[in-house]
Amino acid sequence: MNDLFLRACRREPVERTPIWIMRQAGRYLPEYREVRRRVDFLTLCKTPELAAEVTLQPIDRFGFDAAILFSDILTIAEPMGFEITFNPGPVISAPVRTAADVERVREFDPEQELPFVYETIRILRRELEGRVPLIGFAAAPFTLAAYLAEGAGSRNFVEPKRLILGDPTTARRLLERVTAATERYVTAQVRAGAQAIQLFDTWAGLLTAREYREFGLRYARQVIDAVRGTGVPVIYVARDATHLMNEIAGCGSDVVGLDWRAPLDESAGKLGERYAVQGNLDPCVLFAPAEVVTRQAREILERAQGLPGHIFNLGHGVLPGTPVEHVEALVRAVQGRN
Amino acid sequence: MNDLFLRACRREPVERTPIWIMRQAGRYLPEYREVRRRVDFLTLCKTPELAAEVTLQPIDRFGFDAAILFSDILTIAEPMGFEITFNPGPVISAPVRTAADVERVREFDPEQELPFVYETIRILRRELEGRVPLIGFAAAPFTLAAYLAEGAGSRNFVEPKRLILGDPTTARRLLERVTAATERYVTAQVRAGAQAIQLFDTWAGLLTAREYREFGLRYARQVIDAVRGTGVPVIYVARDATHLMNEIAGCGSDVVGLDWRAPLDESAGKLGERYAVQGNLDPCVLFAPAEVVTRQAREILERAQGLPGHIFNLGHGVLPGTPVEHVEALVRAVQGRN
Repeated sequence: MNDLFLRACRREPVERTPIWIMRQAGRYLPEYREVRRRVDFLTLCKTPELAAEVTLQPIDRFGFDAAILFSDILTIAEPMGFEITFNPGPVISAPVRTAADVERVREFDPEQELPFVYETIRILRRELEGRVPLIGFAAAPFTLAAYLAEGAGSRNFVEPKRLILGDPTTARRLLERVTAATERYVTAQVRAGAQAIQLFDTWAGLLTAREYREFGLRYARQVIDAVRGTGVPVIYVARDATHLMNEIAGCGSDVVGLDWRAPLDESAGKLGERYAVQGNLDPCVLFAPAEVVTRQAREILERAQGLPGHIFNLGHGVLPGTPVEHVEALVRAVQGRN
Repeated sequence: MNDLFLRACRREPVERTPIWIMRQAGRYLPEYREVRRRVDFLTLCKTPELAAEVTLQPIDRFGFDAAILFSDILTIAEPMGFEITFNPGPVISAPVRTAADVERVREFDPEQELPFVYETIRILRRELEGRVPLIGFAAAPFTLAAYLAEGAGSRNFVEPKRLILGDPTTARRLLERVTAATERYVTAQVRAGAQAIQLFDTWAGLLTAREYREFGLRYARQVIDAVRGTGVPVIYVARDATHLMNEIAGCGSDVVGLDWRAPLDESAGKLGERYAVQGNLDPCVLFAPAEVVTRQAREILERAQGLPGHIFNLGHGVLPGTPVEHVEALVRAVQGRN
């Protein structure tokens, strides 16, 4: 097996830097859009054969060094008792605003109620035949709780802030339920065959350091510890969180994902020797000419020299409309094939 | 005149910390919504009597220590040759993508072609009767250029990045034209009576430090220098720019606006003694109970003690739906009236 990714996660020596990119199975790929012409997003997530098919598309096309389960960070919210629709961003029925709302949050057995997730993982492990490792994922607790409180994606996320500032006890109770569900959800992914877990803390960057310590880091760390107990590495990715790097240094994961805002080596310095890092090309760079993509990829590789472990990735998910030839150029530059 | 604001800008001693809030004349105010029921946003910006009326609303209601011209950061784009519509965010006709597009950017005399801006300022100076100072404003050059390249507000702003990475020469030519227009636009605001200028670099936070130095800071600094040449203080506000603080320390303004992500004293430390700071309450805090608003306002005032100058403000603009009683509680807490 190509285990460069897993070795980099564990800060073991690698012959070359492994690369995968967030949302690598997505709308920028013509073969993905072809599948989406036939089924809507939720149906795609819930149909294991199709979810596995789109997961493999970027592996087949580009030769990335890791595959990531095709799913959505809100998949877990349905069995918790919420209805999710897409319009086009996610909209959650009856968001959590009060202590009584938290009592509505159902405990559930993820293998019973989200069987399609685990079936997709099993299919993928079979079809990957050991070509590259498979990453499972979930939202970190604060980010899931933020969606449940807000009821939709939003630039400001007033409701989660209102909850943590106005009723911290209820916020903590919500976070505890979300954390317990997320632990069960991801450890079952590992049992089904996921070889690493990525936790997305997409909204952590909206918090101050103090808020993050109390309502973000603490719960993320519980999920991270639970996954590490199963023996697979964990990648923790907080978006737009340059100001939280000193706190993130306490998250206990194997790898920390970094956006492009701060130089890779600078952030790695704040995290310390304990962590491998993942990142951090600005996804907008992929819209620039191929030679710019190649140059910027090389600069990141240079900055990463001497770090304990580095997995090449983008600083955010790849954007719709990204030219596939530029992704190809990126992979070639990182894998040293040109 | 209540000149607390101007003295704080100049790092002179003040009896108490002055306060105003970004977008203080806005949708959260019932009297503003009342005006907007009669006229659309663009008409409001272009009708001096009405623009002056809404500018004064928050001064009359809350007793803020500064008024800010009611206008839009894209007002300047129309005489440059672009059509602006709102849907509900701004949409710009025929965005700038090529060298030929830059040649279309018109030079213009702002006092001739945007007379309503200057008339609003003259009305306001008369009607304020010296109660509080009047702030004029504009977008910083990178932010205006980013809008002109993208053609609309967007979360990713692919087009400005594509331009600066793929065709830096054209990007620089666009920035030079934008900078020259902005200089004329704001220095004429000072001649009409604006007593300070705020430059909004709303999209600077999307840049890496290197990109910012080359395409953001350099041009912002030119406008700042031009305004300072007229003798009035300049406030420079880059949004979501914690990672750029060391660069912003070279912007040369009188005041730097800070968002809530980093503690006020920490950012001020990076800026150095040369700068007064403005900020930095998270606008979401205003949705929490009034006692939380008061407590957080006091914490910011404590953190600001010993800084060379401090103007209380939010870290972003006040959000639609913000309870007016909480704004009232904030102003009382800062002005020491409770």
